[in-house]
Amino acid sequence: MAANQESLESYYGREIILADRELVESGSDEILKDADTQDIAFLVVGDPFGATTHTDLVLRARELGIKVETIHNASIMNAVGACGLQLYQFGQTISLVFFTDSWKPDSFYNKIMENRKIGLHTLILLDIKVKEQSIENMARGRLIYEPPRYMDIATAASQLIEIEELRQEKAYTENTPCVAISRLGAPTQSFKAGTLKELSEYDSGEPLHTMVMLGRQVHDLELEYLYQFVNDREKFKADVAKDQEFFKPPPYVPPEEDLSD
Amino acid sequence: MAANQESLESYYGREIILADRELVESGSDEILKDADTQDIAFLVVGDPFGATTHTDLVLRARELGIKVETIHNASIMNAVGACGLQLYQFGQTISLVFFTDSWKPDSFYNKIMENRKIGLHTLILLDIKVKEQSIENMARGRLIYEPPRYMDIATAASQLIEIEELRQEKAYTENTPCVAISRLGAPTQSFKAGTLKELSEYDSGEPLHTMVMLGRQVHDLELEYLYQFVNDREKFKADVAKDQEFFKPPPYVPPEEDLSD
Repeated sequence: MAANQESLESYYGREIILADRELVESGSDEILKDADTQDIAFLVVGDPFGATTHTDLVLRARELGIKVETIHNASIMNAVGACGLQLYQFGQTISLVFFTDSWKPDSFYNKIMENRKIGLHTLILLDIKVKEQSIENMARGRLIYEPPRYMDIATAASQLIEIEELRQEKAYTENTPCVAISRLGAPTQSFKAGTLKELSEYDSGEPLHTMVMLGRQVHDLELEYLYQFVNDREKFKADVAKDQEFFKPPPYVPPEEDLSD
Repeated sequence: MAANQESLESYYGREIILADRELVESGSDEILKDADTQDIAFLVVGDPFGATTHTDLVLRARELGIKVETIHNASIMNAVGACGLQLYQFGQTISLVFFTDSWKPDSFYNKIMENRKIGLHTLILLDIKVKEQSIENMARGRLIYEPPRYMDIATAASQLIEIEELRQEKAYTENTPCVAISRLGAPTQSFKAGTLKELSEYDSGEPLHTMVMLGRQVHDLELEYLYQFVNDREKFKADVAKDQEFFKPPPYVPPEEDLSD
């Protein structure tokens, strides 16, 4: 997590070309050039199959008859288990992008609803903006890039609350318990559990950050683990219990035949 | 994947104690003994947080004031992306255990139904029986263990079909497309895509095996990737299209107000 280009070059004893988003998404020919005769490694953060563009790159390599060998790695998709929530209790993963005044994409909302309807946790990946141009610079064709931005927990929680206020379909509420995960895998990694509202005021520090929204199915062991990351254990327990009322199956009513016995 | 105790001991330059299921599940005191003063590593296959017992072990360590550092690793939970299906399209993970004549647990069936209702893929983990006693040996208190058993793809597919035949709720059919993944991460890893029925006759070779059942949401890129693993591309494409009819949202019918415009 703490490696830079120089330390990686010295570690591998090889030259490394920094592949930005543009090169990865549109420059597959350049990446695959000579890879049929030379041993070229494409290094990624996390697991290579975590991104559609990487899957696409493998497909193109195979079309060109280039042999591909994959070395798997830990990914946020599984390392998220470090917060104590069990991986088999997660539903589909969603992504949250930076809202602007005029653009607040909320397709994630239905996915959270689907996950929570069946009691599952939702892993929420937060936007990263690296090497982005301002609209003005893009319009004028200036290759000037904005400073990198990484969505923090407070922004993510606020955006989630904003969409719930707009939609009001109760996919979640501002009292829904979530877990904030910061710098996972780094020595300074930290976890914080609380309601969305609490996390909307949480100072999560340096990036990268990820969030998990809890589903109804919270096992005792999961809860026990999360207690390490809360301010007030009793309050968190009550928040979880209250949130579990959402999407709860209706209580069992015996059929009439049983009643007549 | 190919390491054994000896090669690991020579690699780490440390003695390794083989921790069987019993030791991990009931012997946490033994594992944590002296770990407050000595540097003890608990090695696992996959990611440490993939199993509830490991989470429990971390909790016990913290209760005893033992500092724990986690080194994350690739896990089947994310490396499954190697089959070309996108990780963010997976629902909850299920486990399939070896059926006996009198014991055919099918709680997985409802979970597959839940995943497929919202269009998601399902990762299916297959049973592993290591160091198990026969009922007779257990009853007589003989510490004789059966040879290890690893569920193969044909058995898994057959058991899935068997439960669908019993339940008949159409969570899936014998024509539902699945992907068989064998020895993932090893040099001999292999993939096979086909219907459940086709996979029930598939010889998947040496363990370990995993399966994925497809959901309705299959992207073109995913399909393109899976074509590498099928016998008959056109048939597979048709099978996927046919299976996508299940759980399809009903066609849009405009409300009456709209009709009167």
